[in-house]
Amino acid sequence: MIRKYIFGSPIETGAVVGTSVTDTYEHMTLMDMVYDSTSVVLSYTMEEDDVIYGLGQQVRGINKRGYLYISNATDDPNHIETKHSLYGAHNFLIVCGKKTFGIFIDDPGQVSFDVGYTAIDSLKVTAGGDCVIYTIEGSSLKDIVKQFRKLIGQSYVAPKWAFGYQQSRWGYKDIKDVRRVISGHHDQNIPLEAVCLDIDYMERYKDFTVDREAFPDFEGFVEEIKQQNVHLVPIIDAGVKIEEGYDVYEEGVKYGYFCKDEDGNDFVAAVWPGKVHFPDVLNSDARKWFGGKYRWLIEQGIDGFWNDMNEPAIFYSQKQLDQVFDELVAMRNENLDINSYFHMKDIVSELSNSPKDYRSFYHNMDGRVICHDKVHNLFGYNMTKAASEAFDTIAPDRRILMYSRSSYIGMHRYGGIWTGDNQAWWQQLLLSIQQMPSLNMCGILYTGSDIGGFGGDTTPDLLMRWLEFGLFTPLMRNHAAAGTREKEVYQFDRLDDYRNIIRIRYSLMTYIYSEFMKSVLDDEMYFRPVAFDYPDDRQAYAVEDQLMVGESIMIAPVYIQNAKGRYVYLPEEMMMVRMKSPEEKTCEMIAAGHHYIPVALNEIVIFIKKGHLLPMIILPKQVKTMADVDETRLEWLGAKDDEASYVLYTDDGISKKYTEKSQWKIIKMRNEDIGCGK
Amino acid sequence: MIRKYIFGSPIETGAVVGTSVTDTYEHMTLMDMVYDSTSVVLSYTMEEDDVIYGLGQQVRGINKRGYLYISNATDDPNHIETKHSLYGAHNFLIVCGKKTFGIFIDDPGQVSFDVGYTAIDSLKVTAGGDCVIYTIEGSSLKDIVKQFRKLIGQSYVAPKWAFGYQQSRWGYKDIKDVRRVISGHHDQNIPLEAVCLDIDYMERYKDFTVDREAFPDFEGFVEEIKQQNVHLVPIIDAGVKIEEGYDVYEEGVKYGYFCKDEDGNDFVAAVWPGKVHFPDVLNSDARKWFGGKYRWLIEQGIDGFWNDMNEPAIFYSQKQLDQVFDELVAMRNENLDINSYFHMKDIVSELSNSPKDYRSFYHNMDGRVICHDKVHNLFGYNMTKAASEAFDTIAPDRRILMYSRSSYIGMHRYGGIWTGDNQAWWQQLLLSIQQMPSLNMCGILYTGSDIGGFGGDTTPDLLMRWLEFGLFTPLMRNHAAAGTREKEVYQFDRLDDYRNIIRIRYSLMTYIYSEFMKSVLDDEMYFRPVAFDYPDDRQAYAVEDQLMVGESIMIAPVYIQNAKGRYVYLPEEMMMVRMKSPEEKTCEMIAAGHHYIPVALNEIVIFIKKGHLLPMIILPKQVKTMADVDETRLEWLGAKDDEASYVLYTDDGISKKYTEKSQWKIIKMRNEDIGCGK
Repeated sequence: MIRKYIFGSPIETGAVVGTSVTDTYEHMTLMDMVYDSTSVVLSYTMEEDDVIYGLGQQVRGINKRGYLYISNATDDPNHIETKHSLYGAHNFLIVCGKKTFGIFIDDPGQVSFDVGYTAIDSLKVTAGGDCVIYTIEGSSLKDIVKQFRKLIGQSYVAPKWAFGYQQSRWGYKDIKDVRRVISGHHDQNIPLEAVCLDIDYMERYKDFTVDREAFPDFEGFVEEIKQQNVHLVPIIDAGVKIEEGYDVYEEGVKYGYFCKDEDGNDFVAAVWPGKVHFPDVLNSDARKWFGGKYRWLIEQGIDGFWNDMNEPAIFYSQKQLDQVFDELVAMRNENLDINSYFHMKDIVSELSNSPKDYRSFYHNMDGRVICHDKVHNLFGYNMTKAASEAFDTIAPDRRILMYSRSSYIGMHRYGGIWTGDNQAWWQQLLLSIQQMPSLNMCGILYTGSDIGGFGGDTTPDLLMRWLEFGLFTPLMRNHAAAGTREKEVYQFDRLDDYRNIIRIRYSLMTYIYSEFMKSVLDDEMYFRPVAFDYPDDRQAYAVEDQLMVGESIMIAPVYIQNAKGRYVYLPEEMMMVRMKSPEEKTCEMIAAGHHYIPVALNEIVIFIKKGHLLPMIILPKQVKTMADVDETRLEWLGAKDDEASYVLYTDDGISKKYTEKSQWKIIKMRNEDIGCGK
Repeated sequence: MIRKYIFGSPIETGAVVGTSVTDTYEHMTLMDMVYDSTSVVLSYTMEEDDVIYGLGQQVRGINKRGYLYISNATDDPNHIETKHSLYGAHNFLIVCGKKTFGIFIDDPGQVSFDVGYTAIDSLKVTAGGDCVIYTIEGSSLKDIVKQFRKLIGQSYVAPKWAFGYQQSRWGYKDIKDVRRVISGHHDQNIPLEAVCLDIDYMERYKDFTVDREAFPDFEGFVEEIKQQNVHLVPIIDAGVKIEEGYDVYEEGVKYGYFCKDEDGNDFVAAVWPGKVHFPDVLNSDARKWFGGKYRWLIEQGIDGFWNDMNEPAIFYSQKQLDQVFDELVAMRNENLDINSYFHMKDIVSELSNSPKDYRSFYHNMDGRVICHDKVHNLFGYNMTKAASEAFDTIAPDRRILMYSRSSYIGMHRYGGIWTGDNQAWWQQLLLSIQQMPSLNMCGILYTGSDIGGFGGDTTPDLLMRWLEFGLFTPLMRNHAAAGTREKEVYQFDRLDDYRNIIRIRYSLMTYIYSEFMKSVLDDEMYFRPVAFDYPDDRQAYAVEDQLMVGESIMIAPVYIQNAKGRYVYLPEEMMMVRMKSPEEKTCEMIAAGHHYIPVALNEIVIFIKKGHLLPMIILPKQVKTMADVDETRLEWLGAKDDEASYVLYTDDGISKKYTEKSQWKIIKMRNEDIGCGK
């Protein structure tokens, strides 16, 4: 049951599309509520064993207890534990304990969640005075999520090729670089489905342009690599470069499609291209116009994009910069003391993503002029919506790949996300494991983290372990920042191991895609905390580093350096499949309970639930892309002593016509057809 | 067996004092060696199961495999995994595997350790061309450490009171603040032995001064709180403020005791006091002079210090700052592009601790003028040596507490360290657990981390879990940065739990002190990796989050948020003691092997080795300081089915006369005298 509470004059975010819930209520019974026109404060006293789920892309564990989280989309690559905000704003929580219910705060400004931070037992949610709050009660954790997901609408579906392995790096500059990446993989028989182009491919970082020196015949090149079944996935940034003669800039100015400053002039920020304007993607005309710009690249053969810098990130605004320089020049002639020195460092470091800047520009939301800081968390969402709505016109029948950095509840209908500029830390591998179910709750199913870490220099073992987890994420992308160690897998020794791990992904493609699609079409979670499947098992609630993936399996990735194994908790007896490659695997029944499981650096383990089946594709020796794979050649893994079944979803992987639930195939297997290496 | 290899003209660091090893050798057999006058490069191919121990204060796990470490003392509070250097330089490694040996690189400049970072199996150590290298072969890991420790001399011994609980905060400004901290603990019956004074107590941050407005009668105040058996522990910073009329400054100038710049003038850096000179603690006359300055505070009743900012940290040098301002002013008039913007941010952020500055000043090492960057890692060590040598004159018979931030091998003879400006991250609690045995290998026994985390806002549960580990570290100090959440334990709910945890420390004081002293006097490690005690157990080498503490026990701290238990590996059957307080405890025999052990937030578990005993003091109801504790009232815990023994060290806790080994008491217990709550 969903209850809706309306406070003040909320901004229509578009987060909610479900029409079944229109009743509104006055008095909240699930939580204590204080409303005073500038804020809504919800309070709740947690019991010792209560678990709090949710908040999508945030720091810390699956159980969010013990910290203060603030929804405030932020371009900050340093995802340490004491940060309060990352790139997205996902105001959905589940309280699970003596009472179990979900709560969604539809407020596009800052919302804070004090989950036992100030006082260990106290949950306190603070939103602005104009918002809509939904409470969701249901029969189980899964049911609450399902109701929420119905409320916010069906998740985005990526084309099937986008489940292949993607390689990216900020620094692939030209055709030569891209060719080298493709042949670096394919010559070594390592699958590779796509190469992502970071900002380097553009002409002076201008959206919807291509550097013609680096890519003299871009369309021809797109076609050339498409012949190899490899896709190019260019980045699109939020800011439009201010440059005379640049059509996007000139049109935006002409039609008034950019965000305005206090004086009604087009707001000027500086990002990668230098000075830019921001397209006012909260305005439906501007959104339509900006989305239409993707057409040019699609017409050149591009079928996938990533939207970046759309919190929106601001390196500086001219106004702030001028003020800082004025202060610096004034300081120049003074005898600096230590306080002035720190002030100097602060004003320079605080230039980027300054709240002052976010308070100084405006949107025209179809007639309603509104200051950006009130709707800050909607920018990335609407930039992605712009593209997605345009794709429906440009390519109405086929899916275009799209993933964004910033997001808000509702954006999951238009694209996926990657988890932003993480770092080459083992701790971030764990964080990315823990973020997956939280994101899935919010409908963000097409997602994954930058494998090996974006910033910092990765190590061969971290990359290996991260691939071993990443092979389960719908978006499986190895990406790196400029200046960091090159980390395409062929840069390292032990290439056989890297190849095997990526080949395991390809052998699991039928399962991964089927489970992803079922999650989309049935409003389910592809990644789930263990307790979601075993709600009566208290121990399951403590598990923070294992995930249920799809209907059949549980995974237990290794995320600790030098570990040669790990502890795994099994809520019931399961069949463990240990794999070095799709071909080298052993199966073993493992009893319910706690186990130490050896897992060598070049191995993964998968746990198959009893009564369930895991389809694995029997791969040919040479797999360069999914085109080399015959998905009719399946082997089925499962516990020998069970009759088991599997609900298999298939479709053509590209059209927007999805297979109806009534057509999903139910595979039933007898013992003799199930097993390792059958 | 220790072999010594001399390259070029090494600088005498004083790290080595052992006289038994005087033979020198030409050709290293343990590792491949390349020497070319500017560098020595040692290489070694690691086998899959080789474990690398050592490196003292560094990032990452106990097993150092998988990263690039650089010895380069650095004031950097952001101890993330991708940092290469922290505050100390501890160039001691143990290779443990097909060959097992130790190696110590006595080189006070930068030394790098590529431990499987570039290539997963390759260990490569790179030192400068002038250094001494020692290789150590022995019968076991413990034996190798013992030989190394004999080589570098006996560790510093803190007064016994310094094993009590210490409370610190950057921000205790005056008598009122200190009194509030003491009564905040003592009024609530929470033990507190010392309050540390950060830079706020000084007059304009001048070493060896006291702010007379904040502390009008400092000597009287020291005496007043000493009546309550509480000690004040003031900080001393490396830089001496440049201020006319300030005696330390004027004397240093007059006698030429400060480090010089290229032109022979006293080198000017800026740190907390503003412009400072650095005392040339590498010069024996200057060291003697600077050390003598501690006398003034000791004469006012002070009996403990901490030496800070002694990497030495440099916020900026005037020369660099002028250059940066020149650049900034020039930029002011240009149309900044994005590259210039990042350049601007970089030059400002790189002002601090700039390698350029470290290359621009000089020491006079008793006649030999040497550029700072060649001996950078010796500064903190010699600052602490200055104090310690002076203490021998000022207070020849009694121990003075001393711990330093920066250190080098050899400093362990003069003081302890705290692990510097860590953060309120769970990950840093784990890091501090992992650093302890590595520091102990290098003789640094009096050590601990800032409990709850120095930077960032701690959470009630993190503080609790950190205290539960910190109660085993010889230095047990709760410290916090200015601007962060107040985190004296009485700031939080559940005070009973915090009190109980700190009382457990006091009940274990006999054991902790005895084990510390035995480790000092016998060149042993107080904290050991599990494999050091169980070298034949392969599984023990994988354990990265349990420690052997002293002769009798193993600990398994909880360091994961919201965890209600953890996995523990027992190499043999042990007795588990579960404790909520010294009085509330249960004992249970646990079989060898892997276990999941529930550990509530307000509990600790201790594992007692069979045949060993754990003495616990039976505390009175009210314990404010160790003065309230009667150490003759002991209960003895141990496995019931064993006759067990314990080697008990005792002394007066303050004099420098330590009890001879022949006088250590061997306690033997029969079954009926052992147990929980006996």
